[in-house]
Amino acid sequence: MEHQEAYEQLAQALTARGIDVDQIKVALRAQRIETPSWGYSNSGTRFKVFGWPGAARNVYEKLADAAFVQSLTGIAPSVALHIPWDMVDDWSALSEYAASLGMQIGAINPNVFQDEAYKFGSFTNSNPDVRRQAIDHALECTEIMRATGSSILSLWFADGTNYAGQDSFRGRKRFMAQAFEEVYTALPEGGRMLIEYKFFEPPFYHTDLSDWGIAATFARQLGPQAQVLVDTGHHALGTNVEHIVAILLDEGLLGGFHFNSRKYADDDLIVGTVNPFELFLIYNELIDAERDEDSVVSSCARNVAYMIDQSHNIEPKLEAMVQSVVNCQAAYAKALLIDRKALAERRAAQDVLGAYRVLTDAYETDVRPLLAEVRVEMGLAPDPFAAYAESDYPDKLARERGGGTGSGGGYPGA
Amino acid sequence: MEHQEAYEQLAQALTARGIDVDQIKVALRAQRIETPSWGYSNSGTRFKVFGWPGAARNVYEKLADAAFVQSLTGIAPSVALHIPWDMVDDWSALSEYAASLGMQIGAINPNVFQDEAYKFGSFTNSNPDVRRQAIDHALECTEIMRATGSSILSLWFADGTNYAGQDSFRGRKRFMAQAFEEVYTALPEGGRMLIEYKFFEPPFYHTDLSDWGIAATFARQLGPQAQVLVDTGHHALGTNVEHIVAILLDEGLLGGFHFNSRKYADDDLIVGTVNPFELFLIYNELIDAERDEDSVVSSCARNVAYMIDQSHNIEPKLEAMVQSVVNCQAAYAKALLIDRKALAERRAAQDVLGAYRVLTDAYETDVRPLLAEVRVEMGLAPDPFAAYAESDYPDKLARERGGGTGSGGGYPGA
Amino acid sequence: MEHQEAYEQLAQALTARGIDVDQIKVALRAQRIETPSWGYSNSGTRFKVFGWPGAARNVYEKLADAAFVQSLTGIAPSVALHIPWDMVDDWSALSEYAASLGMQIGAINPNVFQDEAYKFGSFTNSNPDVRRQAIDHALECTEIMRATGSSILSLWFADGTNYAGQDSFRGRKRFMAQAFEEVYTALPEGGRMLIEYKFFEPPFYHTDLSDWGIAATFARQLGPQAQVLVDTGHHALGTNVEHIVAILLDEGLLGGFHFNSRKYADDDLIVGTVNPFELFLIYNELIDAERDEDSVVSSCARNVAYMIDQSHNIEPKLEAMVQSVVNCQAAYAKALLIDRKALAERRAAQDVLGAYRVLTDAYETDVRPLLAEVRVEMGLAPDPFAAYAESDYPDKLARERGGGTGSGGGYPGA
Amino acid sequence: MEHQEAYEQLAQALTARGIDVDQIKVALRAQRIETPSWGYSNSGTRFKVFGWPGAARNVYEKLADAAFVQSLTGIAPSVALHIPWDMVDDWSALSEYAASLGMQIGAINPNVFQDEAYKFGSFTNSNPDVRRQAIDHALECTEIMRATGSSILSLWFADGTNYAGQDSFRGRKRFMAQAFEEVYTALPEGGRMLIEYKFFEPPFYHTDLSDWGIAATFARQLGPQAQVLVDTGHHALGTNVEHIVAILLDEGLLGGFHFNSRKYADDDLIVGTVNPFELFLIYNELIDAERDEDSVVSSCARNVAYMIDQSHNIEPKLEAMVQSVVNCQAAYAKALLIDRKALAERRAAQDVLGAYRVLTDAYETDVRPLLAEVRVEMGLAPDPFAAYAESDYPDKLARERGGGTGSGGGYPGA
Repeated sequence: MEHQEAYEQLAQALTARGIDVDQIKVALRAQRIETPSWGYSNSGTRFKVFGWPGAARNVYEKLADAAFVQSLTGIAPSVALHIPWDMVDDWSALSEYAASLGMQIGAINPNVFQDEAYKFGSFTNSNPDVRRQAIDHALECTEIMRATGSSILSLWFADGTNYAGQDSFRGRKRFMAQAFEEVYTALPEGGRMLIEYKFFEPPFYHTDLSDWGIAATFARQLGPQAQVLVDTGHHALGTNVEHIVAILLDEGLLGGFHFNSRKYADDDLIVGTVNPFELFLIYNELIDAERDEDSVVSSCARNVAYMIDQSHNIEPKLEAMVQSVVNCQAAYAKALLIDRKALAERRAAQDVLGAYRVLTDAYETDVRPLLAEVRVEMGLAPDPFAAYAESDYPDKLARERGGGTGSGGGYPGA
Repeated sequence: MEHQEAYEQLAQALTARGIDVDQIKVALRAQRIETPSWGYSNSGTRFKVFGWPGAARNVYEKLADAAFVQSLTGIAPSVALHIPWDMVDDWSALSEYAASLGMQIGAINPNVFQDEAYKFGSFTNSNPDVRRQAIDHALECTEIMRATGSSILSLWFADGTNYAGQDSFRGRKRFMAQAFEEVYTALPEGGRMLIEYKFFEPPFYHTDLSDWGIAATFARQLGPQAQVLVDTGHHALGTNVEHIVAILLDEGLLGGFHFNSRKYADDDLIVGTVNPFELFLIYNELIDAERDEDSVVSSCARNVAYMIDQSHNIEPKLEAMVQSVVNCQAAYAKALLIDRKALAERRAAQDVLGAYRVLTDAYETDVRPLLAEVRVEMGLAPDPFAAYAESDYPDKLARERGGGTGSGGGYPGA
Repeated sequence: MEHQEAYEQLAQALTARGIDVDQIKVALRAQRIETPSWGYSNSGTRFKVFGWPGAARNVYEKLADAAFVQSLTGIAPSVALHIPWDMVDDWSALSEYAASLGMQIGAINPNVFQDEAYKFGSFTNSNPDVRRQAIDHALECTEIMRATGSSILSLWFADGTNYAGQDSFRGRKRFMAQAFEEVYTALPEGGRMLIEYKFFEPPFYHTDLSDWGIAATFARQLGPQAQVLVDTGHHALGTNVEHIVAILLDEGLLGGFHFNSRKYADDDLIVGTVNPFELFLIYNELIDAERDEDSVVSSCARNVAYMIDQSHNIEPKLEAMVQSVVNCQAAYAKALLIDRKALAERRAAQDVLGAYRVLTDAYETDVRPLLAEVRVEMGLAPDPFAAYAESDYPDKLARERGGGTGSGGGYPGA
Repeated sequence: MEHQEAYEQLAQALTARGIDVDQIKVALRAQRIETPSWGYSNSGTRFKVFGWPGAARNVYEKLADAAFVQSLTGIAPSVALHIPWDMVDDWSALSEYAASLGMQIGAINPNVFQDEAYKFGSFTNSNPDVRRQAIDHALECTEIMRATGSSILSLWFADGTNYAGQDSFRGRKRFMAQAFEEVYTALPEGGRMLIEYKFFEPPFYHTDLSDWGIAATFARQLGPQAQVLVDTGHHALGTNVEHIVAILLDEGLLGGFHFNSRKYADDDLIVGTVNPFELFLIYNELIDAERDEDSVVSSCARNVAYMIDQSHNIEPKLEAMVQSVVNCQAAYAKALLIDRKALAERRAAQDVLGAYRVLTDAYETDVRPLLAEVRVEMGLAPDPFAAYAESDYPDKLARERGGGTGSGGGYPGA
């Protein structure tokens, strides 16, 4: 095979740099990226949802599509669910179906933003009936965790206000605390509640959970089963996301990621497409923390949940998902190549550019032959995009699923 | 009436400052704000469109609602249309209906972003059939201008790309130029083509018409009937919008506004709600240009089309529109109070803070009694919000239009 | 006096709206704004420091200038010091001089960013000698607190990195924690340590204390004498600062403000000049918290230290400081006028725009006559800018201090 | 040599992909990056200028340092000058000295921001005497162009205002136009005037030349010898710089670059360190335009002046400059590897992710062996950083130039 020669040249060069290539391959095989069920159904912008001919129409189809992505990438064996979009009567039937595909159910994502009741908020709504409805839905999702064996409750809120004065920041904060308390208590044993923050949108004046600081404040008050979820697109422009990742790791508070890219707002583009160097720097922090002597930190790092959360409008959905997984894989592979001993030395010497070049030496390495080799060793095709192009699965979906008008994702306008 | 005394006190104080209050009132009565037909039907975010019980379901209802806003404000007698959302068979019947309400048809807005064909662009699409479709739609809109007596074609494009490499920036720019050329030629005599720019969204990597610079480049190449349209929310954070307004006025290129507010992206909130001082500064530039000795500048300023373009999700639609008009009115009234002679003197003396205080002296003035007086002199209620609260029109709509599920606006998810 | 009639009209109108004007005046007389010693000496940008002819050259002159600002405003009786810029041998002599002017020494600000040693950080420097130097300087400042009766240690750091990889985020965080611990222990009884955060600059890749979340993390770990200092210009664009203020108040963690304005970065312009509505919204949160039933919150709010921190380059320094104090006064006065009962009702009714108008009703009020009356009742001139214009103090300084070349502020380039 | 084997493997792989490696090497040898004289003397932030022991103290030393950078990189044979920082009595002596080092004098940069007179602007100052002074300085610089054989006048202005109302936007714009007119007329034959824009800083409310749109407006009005200079750090966050580059190229208006990186504002970090993918995308546009059939476009692209403009504070100056040149080289090399035929095909097929992958296929290539080979073929060391580490030049400077206190750059605080 063509990749083989390139791999051998690379392996030789890496070995010459003192890198244990086998260890790198072990790490790459163990990498995990969870794909979201809603990434397989139609989605878009407020202006238009362009349907994709093969878009999945229900959770069974979503699992099948995720299994296809897994068959090309090998590191994406679980699928996050969104309730009620993925609601079924029989969870064990669904879990069995997943297992039959070699897949698992991942994080459970309650939806407390699309019911008319949530116009002015869910957990923070001044109307106690609405808070009750939202909390009950979250509690129901803890039951779904038990029914599916999921260990993660992933909480995102559209709560906030659009106009100065509209509501009380502190009053809402207190409602949020009460609601979290109730849901936290209902978590299954060993289950985790990940609290996602977002800088803006859909509320445009203030978001109740606007940054990692407020999410961490709640997580600390709740206890060790509550952690923070970092969506890479949910920050103000100019934010150093890898620094936030490092802080949360050091506090033992990083629970997981929703990966995507953005150039301006929460653009929800394919992860790694706007600034691939940033994704590499994020993985660098994670590897660094995994190896920390403080077990709180290393244990936190080793339990981080890596999930994709994107909103594709014009890209073929399955190809987009493969691209997402591969971009994470490349970033992780490069971060694994960082010479951490040299980095520590350059830092100790306060050698600014020397330390920077230890990172860029890893980043500049062309890891594609390495990834191809790992795939082949896992029994996969070396090039997932070539395999995608050769597959008749997407065409089959387009024929069978009838033209992209399905709204299986619950996306408005889909 | 209560406002009368407050007005007399204010008028006295203003007169004492050398201000000709009658002249200010003349200007205030002549102010115009066009409301958009799509502001009367349901709209929202990509996450959810919360229906408003009285939302208009067709263009006749939209005109009726706009007439209600006009009955409370007195300065909003025209309505912008969006095609095909507001398409009718019989334009003269619609114009007659408008006239019967004391209303006029304003700008015509083609829609080249919601058809499946426009997935990869409209005027800039590399597919000539799609370009043809989009141009034909714009040409059709020039016919609607003739049929309705509208003098403005207002062009906004969702054209752009989501990923680096996706398409050729310069190739698309050339397609855009060709399409503009064809549409420009078809404009009715005296009609204007306003080219709107937008920094981002819905395309997230690049927008073909991304800033005033590129819009002005096209407008200059086309000729005097092409000008630039400034949407206040379509700029990068930190942009000095009033400076752009001044530049475009000085070049004779400012055609009109789409007013709204934003805290982060294109939030489409009610104009003047995030930074009312900025709206005042924009009006300041317009008044300054109206009085310029250069007739290109003053004529440009006097022909600026002032239009609202917002996307309300949680606010009562009619109240939101009244608030929008009133916020523009207050900003304009304060800008009219600026002592321009003193300002010129402070500037000539390079008195930084003295010049600033000439502006804040006007801005700090409470103009509400003045606006109340102007309304009363126009035969309206002094307080439009009190009048709104007393009116049974909104309730009547809620009863008759049946619950906010209408999608008369063409908004996805509505 | 002219203002008297305007005041009486305003008082009558406010009283008719159910407002207890006397109570408002009591609050306005009790307002405090601390001015910074470094605001009286030359400062500027990295490109040029334009000297002001009357700029103070030492701490005695700075106190005299602050006393002049106090003589015009009446609510600025204390001055923050910056060490070593304001270092003196005899602190009791300085305190006596201040007292002789009717002034007090306010917050003590250590400087750990201008010594060559701090090139790669101070508290976070991997070099233990540099950390020792920085900590010792902070400890020295706690002694100066004792010597001057100051109750606040105000800590800002230029610590951070310029390049990816340059140093370890988490290693630096741990050094920071150790250093804080040592300084905290040395605080005088009743003294507070305020931890300031900054989004960027002078480090451009990462700032060790980048946001309120990390500052609050440290403050919580240290104990009740540690709180967060909010510099209004130290946030990413689009940040809702009043929301952060509310969160910190609710957690009992808000220690103080460094007030200034910005349009883009940390522009350090006069507070309230870019978006005066935002300053009003910040004061709104503070008043709301002062009245909270939770004594942790109300006590926190009542002990907030309000300080100016600006860097004037082209404005006359004393006039700029008067303007700063007056802008805070106007924002506070308007926030005091908010009808909080009506606000609570509108919020309870989920009346979005009704609640917003409760705020704008207060904001639109012209409070200048009220401020004039308060000044006159305090024995001051009604208009501080007129008084400034009539004073010969600035001219006297220009003659005596010789041309603006003094570098009393320690500003590079001054 | 070690790089040789890696190069041969790479060359083989590239050849297999249909790439003419010799042609790529020809292009790489022809690449040019101009370094700035002010990059060799001390610079920093408004908070502190950390001196570098070997910082150059005068223009002769700066040229010597630039020659050292050239000896390591081979593509940086010219140096931009800043007047009056680099003023000498005898320009031919300086030119001869440069020639003796194998170097040339590049762009001439007037300084109209550091004299006290420019407090309120230079070309836009309402004071005619100040405008005269500034224009005369620019005219003097056109004479220096003649004296040194420089073909570029590079104009950057700190002109703008800090407060709303401070001055008239349009009045200043007209003064700017008049001044440009006068300077344009004085350009040497074949000389070009490059107009640089900047979004903000040092003016913080408005910048007279705030974006490419206004710079292009002036350039068009002046004539073909006036073009726009793009400083990569002078844009609002979120701006698509490569799109602006493409627009300016298509209009024949792109004159040159000031390269640097930023994460937030005008951070002036080493180019390519924050988002190396963006630098690659910029070079992609330039190569695309060089090959355009329209000779206006291709000629514009081939005459672009590539210049570094950074402000190093903590990095060793010479190492930083080598890093800057190498980062540009790597970006250019990768952009040269783009399969433009495949790209055109993917675009024509509207294959969004296929087109994106044509770019990433080039970007992911490890071009370091190629660059090493090009250097060796040019008679240089294969690894410029290893050569830098082995050189005793920096140490020699530190010994001879005495400790970094030199202010040869004219930087405030240096």
